[in-house]
Amino acid sequence: MLRGFVLALLWLYLRAMDEKIRTVSILGAGNVAMHLAAAFVENTVQVKQVYNRTLTKAQQIGEMYKIRYTDRISELEKADLYVITTSDDAIREMSMHIPFDDCLVVHTSGSVDMKMLQGDFRKGVLYPLQTFTKNRALEYDEIPFFVEAENAEDERLLVEFAQRISNRVRVMNSAERASMHLAAVWVCNFVNHMFYVGEQTAAKVDIPFDYLKPLIKETCDKIVDLSPREAQTGPARRQDFSVLQKHFEMIENSKEQELYKLISDSIIKNYQ
Amino acid sequence: MLRGFVLALLWLYLRAMDEKIRTVSILGAGNVAMHLAAAFVENTVQVKQVYNRTLTKAQQIGEMYKIRYTDRISELEKADLYVITTSDDAIREMSMHIPFDDCLVVHTSGSVDMKMLQGDFRKGVLYPLQTFTKNRALEYDEIPFFVEAENAEDERLLVEFAQRISNRVRVMNSAERASMHLAAVWVCNFVNHMFYVGEQTAAKVDIPFDYLKPLIKETCDKIVDLSPREAQTGPARRQDFSVLQKHFEMIENSKEQELYKLISDSIIKNYQ
Repeated sequence: MLRGFVLALLWLYLRAMDEKIRTVSILGAGNVAMHLAAAFVENTVQVKQVYNRTLTKAQQIGEMYKIRYTDRISELEKADLYVITTSDDAIREMSMHIPFDDCLVVHTSGSVDMKMLQGDFRKGVLYPLQTFTKNRALEYDEIPFFVEAENAEDERLLVEFAQRISNRVRVMNSAERASMHLAAVWVCNFVNHMFYVGEQTAAKVDIPFDYLKPLIKETCDKIVDLSPREAQTGPARRQDFSVLQKHFEMIENSKEQELYKLISDSIIKNYQ
Repeated sequence: MLRGFVLALLWLYLRAMDEKIRTVSILGAGNVAMHLAAAFVENTVQVKQVYNRTLTKAQQIGEMYKIRYTDRISELEKADLYVITTSDDAIREMSMHIPFDDCLVVHTSGSVDMKMLQGDFRKGVLYPLQTFTKNRALEYDEIPFFVEAENAEDERLLVEFAQRISNRVRVMNSAERASMHLAAVWVCNFVNHMFYVGEQTAAKVDIPFDYLKPLIKETCDKIVDLSPREAQTGPARRQDFSVLQKHFEMIENSKEQELYKLISDSIIKNYQ
């Protein structure tokens, strides 16, 4: 009797351990979908379908990675995992159209709560921390994936799945994920805007952006070995107020002046 | 008679063309001096001496690149060119100690006017647009050098000299150079501060800076192929005001909030 009970437990345990995500379908066909399809195929994840409202974009990914594609929800087949890659404000509606309950559905957004997913299926998040540009090669195994699920078992499944693609997988709730998305805005979106303002400043004296690229490259390269705090240089770091004042007066646009002052003050504060 | 005159002109012309910078001495022994010494030696420029007030630092460069070094102005020998690499506020005083008149003296600062150089020698500027960190290898031929001189002949000499080191040499007056220095502050110093704020934001949820590095790498890599305007992404670019508001509320520090809002507004403005 006890022996039978132990065997039953063992069988249940082994069955649970055996469970894993085998088939994946991608919903949406933008840059995230394009790159995830590449990452999945590259790591021999079986991608069943790519769905997109406009067929041509789904077709593009489908033909590129030999994945079946459709623009009809009715043609959506059963898969273990559905990955919603649409824009933030389309996630909710997309999730409502998934015609299956016995499956796991995740979105890939940094700033959308898991609860935004609508349906009786199991819910989760798979957030890749990277900026995805069309037709740019990426090393997917280096991209951090932040994973969230409703229960421990799905969490285990998603972590295991993400680890097939990346070496940097972390479990993280929606609130923490929002913080990582904010951090990404600082080091990616805002950094790019600094590039833009620098480009405009150089253009005023007819110097093309190309002349700033070696400096940009070194600025980003040295951060691999040094912390941002160690790597900081410039008039604000030196508290060279005569240069700061001179620069401030050189800037014509008042909003840009305000920006220059605010960032400089923030740097000065860090080194007082 | 005419023949003699023509020959005289020819002789003067050939003599002028023959003039060039043969010997260089470096004044100061900081990171700029260290890297210029490397660039000079690498390109077989004959460096006569390195002078620095504290001998140990001059000695370090001297021994590293087989250059004679001294901490005594009285031991300074005659050279065609003296390159002042000291900090901005030390340039004036350093220049006053140069005991020769029949030579060219330049400083390497982006924000100091050429007129700051004090002496009867010929004056100029040799501004390398790069951030110089100790013990980091750089490709000197890619570094833009901005050159200024009091007269056309010295300008020609400096351009010719700078071209021995770099493929990107431009003549530029002090006012234009100040603009390039300002551009450098945006794409280097301010970019690095964005890295810092991003690092701090990630640290709040116990995520190390390493997790942001693949994103930083891609942000800087894609700017090689795309203009900053094309490369811009993120909630401000998308005018996703719900995310912008959410981020704003997540930021605890009010100065940082102000910074987030100002940069976001600036991006929004660009895409309206």
